[in-house]
Amino acid sequence: MPSPTPTTPSYRHELSRRPGGRWRVDAVKQVSYEVLVRRDLLAVEDPYLARALRDCVTGSGTPSDRRLLIVDRTVETLYGQAIDAYFAAHGFAAAKLVLDAHEQVKDWNSVEAVLAAMDDFGVDRRREPVIAIGGGVLCDVVGFAASIYRRGTPYVRIPTTLIGLIDAGVGVKTGVNHRSGKNRIGTYAQPLLSLLDTSFLGTLPARHLSNGLAEILKVALVKSDALFTSLERAARCGTRSLFDDPFHADLAEYITYESIHLMLEELQPNLWEAVLERCVDYGHTFSPTVEMHSVAELLHGEAVAVDMALTTGLSVGRGLMSEEEGVRVLRAMRGLGLNPWNDALGNHDLLCRALEDTVRHRDGLQRLPLTRGIGGHVFVNDVTPAEIAAGVAFVAAHAPAADELQEAAV
Amino acid sequence: MPSPTPTTPSYRHELSRRPGGRWRVDAVKQVSYEVLVRRDLLAVEDPYLARALRDCVTGSGTPSDRRLLIVDRTVETLYGQAIDAYFAAHGFAAAKLVLDAHEQVKDWNSVEAVLAAMDDFGVDRRREPVIAIGGGVLCDVVGFAASIYRRGTPYVRIPTTLIGLIDAGVGVKTGVNHRSGKNRIGTYAQPLLSLLDTSFLGTLPARHLSNGLAEILKVALVKSDALFTSLERAARCGTRSLFDDPFHADLAEYITYESIHLMLEELQPNLWEAVLERCVDYGHTFSPTVEMHSVAELLHGEAVAVDMALTTGLSVGRGLMSEEEGVRVLRAMRGLGLNPWNDALGNHDLLCRALEDTVRHRDGLQRLPLTRGIGGHVFVNDVTPAEIAAGVAFVAAHAPAADELQEAAV
Ligand SMILES: NC(=O)c1ccc[n+]([C@@H]2O[C@H](COP(=O)([O-])OP(=O)(O)OC[C@H]3O[C@@H](n4cnc5c(N)ncnc54)[C@H](O)[C@@H]3O)[C@@H](O)[C@H]2O)c1
Ligand SMILES: NC(=O)c1ccc[n+]([C@@H]2O[C@H](COP(=O)([O-])OP(=O)(O)OC[C@H]3O[C@@H](n4cnc5c(N)ncnc54)[C@H](O)[C@@H]3O)[C@@H](O)[C@H]2O)c1
Repeated sequence: MPSPTPTTPSYRHELSRRPGGRWRVDAVKQVSYEVLVRRDLLAVEDPYLARALRDCVTGSGTPSDRRLLIVDRTVETLYGQAIDAYFAAHGFAAAKLVLDAHEQVKDWNSVEAVLAAMDDFGVDRRREPVIAIGGGVLCDVVGFAASIYRRGTPYVRIPTTLIGLIDAGVGVKTGVNHRSGKNRIGTYAQPLLSLLDTSFLGTLPARHLSNGLAEILKVALVKSDALFTSLERAARCGTRSLFDDPFHADLAEYITYESIHLMLEELQPNLWEAVLERCVDYGHTFSPTVEMHSVAELLHGEAVAVDMALTTGLSVGRGLMSEEEGVRVLRAMRGLGLNPWNDALGNHDLLCRALEDTVRHRDGLQRLPLTRGIGGHVFVNDVTPAEIAAGVAFVAAHAPAADELQEAAV
Repeated sequence: MPSPTPTTPSYRHELSRRPGGRWRVDAVKQVSYEVLVRRDLLAVEDPYLARALRDCVTGSGTPSDRRLLIVDRTVETLYGQAIDAYFAAHGFAAAKLVLDAHEQVKDWNSVEAVLAAMDDFGVDRRREPVIAIGGGVLCDVVGFAASIYRRGTPYVRIPTTLIGLIDAGVGVKTGVNHRSGKNRIGTYAQPLLSLLDTSFLGTLPARHLSNGLAEILKVALVKSDALFTSLERAARCGTRSLFDDPFHADLAEYITYESIHLMLEELQPNLWEAVLERCVDYGHTFSPTVEMHSVAELLHGEAVAVDMALTTGLSVGRGLMSEEEGVRVLRAMRGLGLNPWNDALGNHDLLCRALEDTVRHRDGLQRLPLTRGIGGHVFVNDVTPAEIAAGVAFVAAHAPAADELQEAAV
C-alpha cells in the first residue's frame, strides 16, 4: 500500500544556452533503495542475504563476488565467526576490516581507515558494494567513506543496534563529527539496500536499547499517539524483555515497524532536506551541542531524550500540551530507561549556543518542532532564553527519579 | 536555444510499503545551476558580481551579506586588492582564506583547511554561499569541502585558469587526490553558480594556457572537427597571443564558448555518470595514473595530452583514423604547447596498470573512448598490451620535436 504522495512537480532535464556565454544546466536524479526486515540473516542455511547482496548490484559489467565487509569491533567479537562462515559458505571472496566504532571515534580518521581498506581491496566503482555491519556510528562512517570514494561507491547497510535499525539504517544521511560539530561533515547518500535484522538486538546492552527507544519516542511524540501508547506499554514490561521475551514479540514488532514507517514517511518526500521544517528533527535542536559537550557521558539517544524533555517543557509553557501530558512524557522516558534530566540543562549558556548553532543549520530560523499534544507538532521560530529557562525548570520539577519509576514498574 | 533533450523518463517519488517489513524509497532530486561568462567581474563600478552573489541565494531565511571567500594564493597576490575593494564597495562582510592550491597540495589537508575556515566563520547552511576564486585545484577543493560541510553548503565558483573556465568550472565534480589515486575522493555537487571571467587569463603563464587547451583539444577530437580546425589556427597564432591580442578575440571567444558548450552538452544528460561511456573521458584513461606518477613534472592537461597522443596511436592502429590525421593531431598538440611524448610512455607496466585502474572505475570494462577520424568517437573494451606498445611506437615515431614546430610557426 503506497502512502499518499504529493503531486509530482514537473522536472527539468535539459541544457539551455542563451547568447553571450550563458548556460543553464537542469538535471534530474532518481534515487531508489529498499529497506528490508529479515531475521537471522547470518543463518548459514538461509540464502536470503547472499541473494540480496548479489541482486542489488545493477551495473552492466560482469558480476563480481568480491565483497569488502566493514565490521564494528564489538559485532566482530560477537558475530565474527558467523559472518565469516556465511560469506564463505555462499561463495563470496570477502575481505574484512574490523573497526572501532562508537561516538568518540566517529571522526575523519575512521573514514580514512575505510577509504584505505577500499583502496587496498581495489573495490570496483559499481559492482562490489561495500557492506557495513554495525551500529549507527559504523553505518554513518562507512556510508560517508563509500559516498566519496570515486565520488560514490555503492554500499549496503546491515545495522546491528536499535538506533541503526530504526533510524541510522533507514535514511540516507552519512557523516562524522568534525571539530566540535556533531555530524558536521557528511553526505546524503542512499545505500543500495538496508537489511534490518532485529535478532542482533539479542546482544545489545540494555542501555543501547533505551538509546534506540529515544528515537522511537521522538517519532511517536510528533506523529503518533498510538505509537506513544505502545511505548508506555513497553516501558511497563521493561526494555530488555520487550525484545527478548516472545510474549512481547507482537508489541516489539509493532513498535519497530511502525517507527520505521513513520520515519520513512517523513524522510522520503524530503530526502535531501530541501524543506528545513522537519518534525523528525524533534529532539535534535539542543541535543547536537549537548551530545558533543558530554560525549563521554551521553549516548546519542540519551542526549535526544534530554532535548525532548526540555522541549516538552517548552510545549507545556506555551500551552501546546497540558502539564499532565508533559509529565506523562517524562515518565515514559524514564520507563524506557532514559533520564530526562542531565546537568547540561543547568548550563543556560550552552543551551542558548546550541540554539544559535541550530539556527545556522536551519537557514537563519529556529524552525523548532514542538509537540502539540502527544502525536502532533508545530514549528516555532521565537523561543526565547527565558522560555528555555522555564522549560528547564519544568524538567527539574517533574522528572521522576529513577527509583520512583522502578517502584511503579513492579 | 535549448539543445535537444532526450525524452523525459518517468520519475518515481513515493514511499511504498509491503507487508512483512519491506519498504521501497523512491525520490527525485532536481539539480539546477547556471554557468555565466562575464568579463572584468572585479571592476568595482560593475554591480554584476554583487548582484549575482545575492540573487543566487534562494533560501527562505533573511538574506545575509556575509561571505567567506577562499582564494588561491597566486590569485590573491595578483588580484587580492581588487577582490577586497570589490566586496567592500558592494556591502559584503567578507572574510577570506588564502590557500596554496596546486596539484601537489590537492589533498585532504586542504579540504580540512577550508572546513575549518567555514566553521570559524560560522557559515550558515543555506544563505551564505562560499565563494571559490582560483584554478581547477582550488575549485575542486572548495567544492568538496562545501559539499560535505553540514552535508552540503552552497558554493559559487569563479575559476581563474583556462582549465577552470572550460572544464573544472562548468561541471559538478569535486574532489582531491588520496593516497596514490587522482581525485580518488570527492562528490558530485553542483555550484549555485559558475562565473567565468576570461580576463583572469591575462596573468596566466603560457604553460597553463596550454594546459587548458589540452582539455579543449580533447573535446574537439571527440566531438567537433570545426573546433579542431580552430585550434589549428590558434596553434599558428600562438597561445599567448590567442588570448591577449584583440585581433584574435573572435577566435578565442569561439574556442572558449564552443568548448564549454560541447562539454556541457556531454555533462548535463549524464551529470552523475550513471552512463560510464563518456566521450569526455577521452584522454583520461591512462592520464590519471601517469599524472600521479609524474606529479612534480606534468600538469593535468599535459598528462591528458600524453594520453591523447597514445590513444591517437591506438586509433591509427585500428584504422579508425588515417596516419595523416594522427600526425595532424600530434602537430596540433605541439603547436598548442603540449608535448605528445613523455617518458612515462616508455613505462609499459605503468600504462597497463593505469588501464586496470580505469577498468575498476568503469564497472569492469575498459569503455575506452577512441577518436574516429577527427571529431568523432567510439568506445572499445578490448585494447591489449601489444596494442598499447604499438600506440606508443606511433607517438615515438611521429611526435614532432619542439623546435620543428617553432620553425613551422614562423
Ligand atoms: N544517519 C542517520 O540518519 C542517523 C540517525 C540516527 C542516529 N545516527 C547516528 O548513529 C549514532 C548512534 O548509533 P548507535 O546508537 O547504534 O551507536 P554505536 O554505533 O556507537 O553503537 C553502540 C554500541 O553498541 C555496540 N554494538 C553494535 N551492535 C551491537 C550488538 N548487536 N550487540 C552488542 N553491541 C553492539 C557498538 O560497538 C557500540 O559500542 C550516532 O552517531 C548518531 O549520530 C545517524
Ligand atoms: N572538477 C572537474 O570537473 C575538473 C575538470 C578538469 C580538471 N579538474 C582539475 O583541475 C585541476 C587543474 O586545474 P588548473 O589547471 O586550473 O590547476 P591549478 O588550480 O593548480 O592552477 C594552476 C596554477 O595557476 C595559478 N593560477 C590560478 N589562476 C591564476 C591566474 N589568473 N593567473 C596566474 N596564475 C594563476 C595557480 O595558483 C596554480 O599555481 C586538476 O587537479 C584537475 O583534476 C577538475
